[in-house]
Amino acid sequence: MSNILSEKFIGLLKEIVGEENVQASTVHRLAYSYDATAQYQSLPDAIVSPRNTKEVSEIIRLCQSKKIPIVPRGSGTNLAAGTVPSSGGIVLLFKHMNKIIELDEENLTVTVQPGVITKDLIDYVEKFDLFYPPDPSSMKISTIGGNINENSGGLRGLKYGVTRDYVYGLEVVMANGDIVKTGGKLAKDVAGYDLTSLFVGSEGTLGIVTEATLKLLPKPTYKETMLAFYDSLEHAAETVSKIIASKIIPATLEFMDQATIEVVEEYTKIGLPTDVEAVLLLEQDGPEEVVRDEMKRMEQVCKANHARKVTLASTQEEAEDLRTARRVALSALARKTPTTILEDATVPRSKIAEMVRKIRSIAEKHNVTICTFGHAGDGNLHPTCLTDARNKEEMERVEEAFAEIFSASIDLGGTITGEHGVGEMKAPYLEWKLGKEGIHVMKSIKDALDPTHIMNPGKVFAKSSKKRVVVTNDTNSSSTKNTTRV
Amino acid sequence: MSNILSEKFIGLLKEIVGEENVQASTVHRLAYSYDATAQYQSLPDAIVSPRNTKEVSEIIRLCQSKKIPIVPRGSGTNLAAGTVPSSGGIVLLFKHMNKIIELDEENLTVTVQPGVITKDLIDYVEKFDLFYPPDPSSMKISTIGGNINENSGGLRGLKYGVTRDYVYGLEVVMANGDIVKTGGKLAKDVAGYDLTSLFVGSEGTLGIVTEATLKLLPKPTYKETMLAFYDSLEHAAETVSKIIASKIIPATLEFMDQATIEVVEEYTKIGLPTDVEAVLLLEQDGPEEVVRDEMKRMEQVCKANHARKVTLASTQEEAEDLRTARRVALSALARKTPTTILEDATVPRSKIAEMVRKIRSIAEKHNVTICTFGHAGDGNLHPTCLTDARNKEEMERVEEAFAEIFSASIDLGGTITGEHGVGEMKAPYLEWKLGKEGIHVMKSIKDALDPTHIMNPGKVFAKSSKKRVVVTNDTNSSSTKNTTRV
Repeated sequence: MSNILSEKFIGLLKEIVGEENVQASTVHRLAYSYDATAQYQSLPDAIVSPRNTKEVSEIIRLCQSKKIPIVPRGSGTNLAAGTVPSSGGIVLLFKHMNKIIELDEENLTVTVQPGVITKDLIDYVEKFDLFYPPDPSSMKISTIGGNINENSGGLRGLKYGVTRDYVYGLEVVMANGDIVKTGGKLAKDVAGYDLTSLFVGSEGTLGIVTEATLKLLPKPTYKETMLAFYDSLEHAAETVSKIIASKIIPATLEFMDQATIEVVEEYTKIGLPTDVEAVLLLEQDGPEEVVRDEMKRMEQVCKANHARKVTLASTQEEAEDLRTARRVALSALARKTPTTILEDATVPRSKIAEMVRKIRSIAEKHNVTICTFGHAGDGNLHPTCLTDARNKEEMERVEEAFAEIFSASIDLGGTITGEHGVGEMKAPYLEWKLGKEGIHVMKSIKDALDPTHIMNPGKVFAKSSKKRVVVTNDTNSSSTKNTTRV
Repeated sequence: MSNILSEKFIGLLKEIVGEENVQASTVHRLAYSYDATAQYQSLPDAIVSPRNTKEVSEIIRLCQSKKIPIVPRGSGTNLAAGTVPSSGGIVLLFKHMNKIIELDEENLTVTVQPGVITKDLIDYVEKFDLFYPPDPSSMKISTIGGNINENSGGLRGLKYGVTRDYVYGLEVVMANGDIVKTGGKLAKDVAGYDLTSLFVGSEGTLGIVTEATLKLLPKPTYKETMLAFYDSLEHAAETVSKIIASKIIPATLEFMDQATIEVVEEYTKIGLPTDVEAVLLLEQDGPEEVVRDEMKRMEQVCKANHARKVTLASTQEEAEDLRTARRVALSALARKTPTTILEDATVPRSKIAEMVRKIRSIAEKHNVTICTFGHAGDGNLHPTCLTDARNKEEMERVEEAFAEIFSASIDLGGTITGEHGVGEMKAPYLEWKLGKEGIHVMKSIKDALDPTHIMNPGKVFAKSSKKRVVVTNDTNSSSTKNTTRV
């Protein structure tokens, strides 16, 4: 039973969603007290699984009446503590709202509930020769609802964009329980403000997404995959700029540094040379003749920029191996040390080389281990720190290093997060990017749409700026902070 | 001199922008009392041309102190009365803020001031083999600032999207004078809410855009243009659906009905058959072999769907002629009668045939002349009424007909405006699309960011819903309504 919510309140929740869809045991609360972000944990008071939009609305109205926080959660793969119930309250699960409602081949749209697994959606539409491009690394377990709340990116972002670029319309339950529908099966709609884009990436802080109409593309008919190995980081980064400047937009243009390659090879044993300084993964899709031509031109650019070796996959299996090398980077790194902290700094793509150098020198300065990989074509890097949260002294150095990385990213015209979101983790840094004025605008919108701050509180906006909040792993103390018995 | 603003206030404006950049004579006020929308006119009190962002901020602070409305204006090509100074106040012109600041070939971005003419920008970047896709029909005179405020579409929208899809970052002056910067030269940025998308299409009601960083693409290397003529409207509409269903996304897929073709031929004399029921303009761009293949496949789809004739342009000049036929539609129609009212209803593209039929029967029912053309691939139709505003009885029938058209559009899963915006003209209908709940969300945002409602007041939100506001052509009575001497 819950230690926080009253029996009566739990009873009211059960009346809405049914007995079996409210969990308040300690074991359940513990299971939903964290997400994929290291070092953040806080107990929710109950876990509730609504079966439809009406129930979501009723839950929100009930929570609103007692000012109980609501945290929507997909599969909890969030890397910025965006789905940690920082102030306790209700975790909303979408395990019952996980249907693909309609595929519309004439309008190239698919309408889904938030609980659909990303990869399942991708596979489903591909059966109809259609294509849903956003492919976050977590896509085998992440949900579309989570992707929408976080505006997830992926390996195909350079050419195809991110989740927001594929959301045509949403059904959202607001903090007052109102059900709002935005957009539709419409390529164009300027009827008022772009609420669709506002909700995408708002991390559940403005409303709860209960349905989405997504844009599809015709599936590219052909694809090629290539790896290029470099003895110099600068040459790899230079290649990225040169490819774009040569007017080719590859589907994928990914980067891994030496430290990452070594760990990935140890994990996958696919024969990557571990003595190179950097590797690029390049993919192009489209009509066969165009792909062949552009891959050839990209190979030339790689070689002209001193790639030691370029490997073109000759079979689908080989291509899958090369892609896997990049996709498993985080998992491979995560095996190395007790704690892995993956960051998300993003710069204009022309600044990739400079940024990678800065990350290196910052890591050296603070004596921490940082491996860097990421979406080079987007300028979206994932400096990943291998550490141990139990070592307080080291953790302080890690914090300092990441603060310097964010600062460097902003100095280069970049941002503190390219695709993971702000969550609780990066909230203290948001002002660095937006200034007081930008924060004020966002806070005004938050206050207007969620005046009592029950929608995923503690995310996006920090209590204080410029210093990362240090949260302990002590679940007992962290959960009850802002929640009172009702 | 102004009849409304005090000498002192005008003096303060002149102190900010210089004597020569404040106009308050009757002739100047008249010149900026209307835009391209028939039947809407209202006198501003002064026209002010700031030279930089700081001056814009100072003007807003000054206006805020006396609650004077501010209406930003590009070239006034707006078709929804979005740039009519409905409540008087200041019209802001961007004739001094019209520079292309920086083209960045490595990051594929261009940074511009709002006063840049759309076509000038397109031509400029094409010199570098780069491509800015949004191409509203007004592009020869419209400005980028206007395009951003309205989220303008164009003929290339089907494949390439609309203005919002090309805005990476904005500098915006808020209603309190704060200068906010959103985004950057960044393909990916999830640092907080998507303010960039919120400002795009907000019609100057949330802030004044003073600078924009736009996304560019490599310029397609090859393009082909084709017209297909139909004896049956249904067959033309069916072709649109079948082309998309055959997994081709053409760059352009435009539609004109018989009434439009007749007027366009009379105007252009390029030899269009005037006895057909419908014509489609189809274009594809990209690598030559792909374009040739897809044009051939589209030709087959046209013929399989009973096109009477398909004409492929064999030279650039011929292609330009075919495109021109569609681009001049509005100008050609505007010559026919004293008043032309062009609308913007949009439906899912699979509903095009049904919508065109509904428009026809609504026109017949109310005995008004409506020609229909538009972006068939986007489901974005422009039913255009040829009428005479002096005929009050006819105008009432026109109003009734358009109300039914909006209603039909929404019934088919569509929207009241695909690319022209809500402005003052369509504000009464917005609730039909959004419901009370959706309007409430948008109004909450408006109130949060512009609590005193000085930013382009009277736009987007109607005083009452469901009935189009009838505005007289009497400039003397309309201008002074909500403005008091300060």
